[in-house]
Amino acid sequence: MAKEQKQEFVQHITPRGENFSQWYTDVVVQTDLMDYTPVRGCMAMKPYGNRIWELIQQELDTRFKDTGHENVAMPMLIPESLLLKEAEHVEGFAPEVAWVTQGGNEVLQERLAVRPTSETIFCTMFSRWVQSWRDLPLKYNQWCSVMRWEKTTRPFLRTSEFWWQEGHTVHATAEEAQEETLLMLEIYREVCEEVLSIPVFRGQKSDKEKFAGARATYSVEAMMQDGKALQAGTSHNFGTNFSVPFNIQYLDKNGTLQYCHETSWGVSTRLIGAIIMTHGDERGLKLPPRIAPFQAVILPISVHKGGVMEKAQEIYETLKAAGIRVKLDDRDNVSSGWKFNEWELKGVPVRLEIGPRDIQNGVASCMRRDTLEKGTLPLDDLPRALKALLDDIQANMFAIASDFTQAHTRLVHTYNELKEQVQGGYAKAMWCGERACEDKIKDETGATSRNMPFDQTPHADTCVCCGKQADRVMYFSKAY
Amino acid sequence: MAKEQKQEFVQHITPRGENFSQWYTDVVVQTDLMDYTPVRGCMAMKPYGNRIWELIQQELDTRFKDTGHENVAMPMLIPESLLLKEAEHVEGFAPEVAWVTQGGNEVLQERLAVRPTSETIFCTMFSRWVQSWRDLPLKYNQWCSVMRWEKTTRPFLRTSEFWWQEGHTVHATAEEAQEETLLMLEIYREVCEEVLSIPVFRGQKSDKEKFAGARATYSVEAMMQDGKALQAGTSHNFGTNFSVPFNIQYLDKNGTLQYCHETSWGVSTRLIGAIIMTHGDERGLKLPPRIAPFQAVILPISVHKGGVMEKAQEIYETLKAAGIRVKLDDRDNVSSGWKFNEWELKGVPVRLEIGPRDIQNGVASCMRRDTLEKGTLPLDDLPRALKALLDDIQANMFAIASDFTQAHTRLVHTYNELKEQVQGGYAKAMWCGERACEDKIKDETGATSRNMPFDQTPHADTCVCCGKQADRVMYFSKAY
Repeated sequence: MAKEQKQEFVQHITPRGENFSQWYTDVVVQTDLMDYTPVRGCMAMKPYGNRIWELIQQELDTRFKDTGHENVAMPMLIPESLLLKEAEHVEGFAPEVAWVTQGGNEVLQERLAVRPTSETIFCTMFSRWVQSWRDLPLKYNQWCSVMRWEKTTRPFLRTSEFWWQEGHTVHATAEEAQEETLLMLEIYREVCEEVLSIPVFRGQKSDKEKFAGARATYSVEAMMQDGKALQAGTSHNFGTNFSVPFNIQYLDKNGTLQYCHETSWGVSTRLIGAIIMTHGDERGLKLPPRIAPFQAVILPISVHKGGVMEKAQEIYETLKAAGIRVKLDDRDNVSSGWKFNEWELKGVPVRLEIGPRDIQNGVASCMRRDTLEKGTLPLDDLPRALKALLDDIQANMFAIASDFTQAHTRLVHTYNELKEQVQGGYAKAMWCGERACEDKIKDETGATSRNMPFDQTPHADTCVCCGKQADRVMYFSKAY
Repeated sequence: MAKEQKQEFVQHITPRGENFSQWYTDVVVQTDLMDYTPVRGCMAMKPYGNRIWELIQQELDTRFKDTGHENVAMPMLIPESLLLKEAEHVEGFAPEVAWVTQGGNEVLQERLAVRPTSETIFCTMFSRWVQSWRDLPLKYNQWCSVMRWEKTTRPFLRTSEFWWQEGHTVHATAEEAQEETLLMLEIYREVCEEVLSIPVFRGQKSDKEKFAGARATYSVEAMMQDGKALQAGTSHNFGTNFSVPFNIQYLDKNGTLQYCHETSWGVSTRLIGAIIMTHGDERGLKLPPRIAPFQAVILPISVHKGGVMEKAQEIYETLKAAGIRVKLDDRDNVSSGWKFNEWELKGVPVRLEIGPRDIQNGVASCMRRDTLEKGTLPLDDLPRALKALLDDIQANMFAIASDFTQAHTRLVHTYNELKEQVQGGYAKAMWCGERACEDKIKDETGATSRNMPFDQTPHADTCVCCGKQADRVMYFSKAY
């Protein structure tokens, strides 16, 4: 029975190299992270996927609060008139809005948008909440879901409804707003790299790719194992683009009325897609320990022998008390082989086996999911030893992903080099700054401009596309 | 200046005895818990109100997880056809649904409801997720907001959109479902009484008042200071009412197909309204320490004297490190009198004053918000002493509310006694069980049946309304 089940697990996952896209779908569905629903383009997050999101939320929320942000909750419906106030913004979002037109039996006078994002309702409230320089800054965030009527959807990567946080802040000066924009970008970098083990490139988006209504958009860009980019988070400086139409003004210390400077920033359940595509392999998920719902799974072996289950239970209690997220798999209707495969598929960082011989030797046999290496951990020092192993896995997963990212990023000097490089990675190129070149590259190679790194040291002086003078360093690649 | 500001705070709150409803509105608005929005019937939760909700969420979520429940996230939009599957359910909710009829530029073939509650989408998914007895039970919960198109709204008590949790569980047997229903009711009682210091009556709703589609609904009912009831939480046993139309079946151990038994249960941001109306007074809010965003506020006094601000800062750090939620109010643009009033208004359980004399005496002057009593706490043992004081406040607030609730609950034997009693409290009456009597009582007194306590010891044998034989004990009162 064990053997058949083992085969069953393996054969359902398409190899990455054969069809990366199908591999992704196989992993998402088989690991029970989510399910499709009868609502077009909307998914249900199942316990395993939702728990990963909760753990990501905790990591972010702590950092938001530590940097002086407060959570609020805004209405999910936004009157159309508010959406229309900022021209670029409405142009960007209107085509993908779901509209409420009836309430109960009544046809509404004005349509209400199911929020695609909340700038316009935040700004409406900010205009009431800000009067004096003493009211500033306001640094708010909200956790919610938003709705964008997408034509083509993929679990976590692009769904009509997705879960996210959106920060919205109001400042007295342009400098403060810029500082906030970059601070939040740095928090996103930190969470991606240190919590999700996903290396990212920080930089500024082109005018073409920036957020509808922003003065400047910054992003963290990750690289998936197929060499495509995934925008993992964005941070926008609005300047006064919204405060003017929404009339968000404050009296400064001299009694003069001034427009406020604003930012917004967000990451979403897309990050779960990034985790899957950065770390996963032919056996399924590999979860970074810091956001793994179970950091270790305990499998009792030869439970018919006396004392094994008791010892496994004792170890479970010890690890749990030590603050480790641990699962004791005491099912008796599947074989150990089945369990091995299932927990590998689900990406649990460490498997611990407790059998009669292990107990006799005072150890737990273990396997780390990142390298599949086997070893033992001493039972009398298990919490400390396991924590050290988890830290090592966390760091190693980041190192492996960093190596991959660097190996698939290349300075390019010619258009042909760019064309070739974006088949499977990032091309770091000089760019003249013209939209025409971005459009041409997109049309001919499928690659888009990702972002301009903060280090703008030029490696040439002509545009990789048009050959005219260029002073901007830009990453190009295909992207999700 | 201090005096004027003090007057300003006081004069904005209508006395409870004069107009309880206006008092409530004054407190809600002035304490910055929420604000009204341009979206009909929808509020924005500001940081102070939202933080209270977060703390309530944590208390509940921990208990849900400790009892084996897992969080999931379901789509916010529900196709009309799903809503129509359970007849009573759609009848109950259809009149108050907000409908999405357009997505982008496309008119939808089928209307989508912004979820008023999620039974129908959960059941749709459950029918896919349950096959065998081994899949059971499924014990899920989700945190989200829901929308009900209300005609008359009041902050926290009744808003078109509100935030809540909804638990949805699937069980193999009727017994298990009933056990779950009562377990969650007990968790609601515990959180109300031990966390919010709100005494509640547990019991079963009448058929008239039960949830649309439920076989049995249980509630926890609290009493506000105007003697009206507030339904603080509900727990429903659906039996197979939903599993039959949604075809949620499992193969039992004998290989026979069986319908599942389901429950659902929820509490909402309404609880914040209950906190306000159970504990508040003429000075504003009184927050139970366990959900107070700030459990203590530190006010440095005579800060021009050397060492005061440093000592206040040191105490702040000490208390924070001890896990107490504490605020240091070091504003220099308002007087101490202003601060006293503001923090009393906001209901912070303990005010600590640190002045030169306090420092000299090795104490912090303190005032507890529940009784307004003043005293001192030793600086060299402050975290422990403050925690003990917070525990005492928590218990005392519950004791005061319990005394009030008991004093305003009366056994009634005649219809006239009932009429009189429901003017300002609960009437515990014998009831025949007929809807006609409930309707008559509602029409003539404004009171509704609240719930039937588990202890059904009769105090008479005839219905308080119709005089026919009666064997049910029922609480009646006016309600929010």
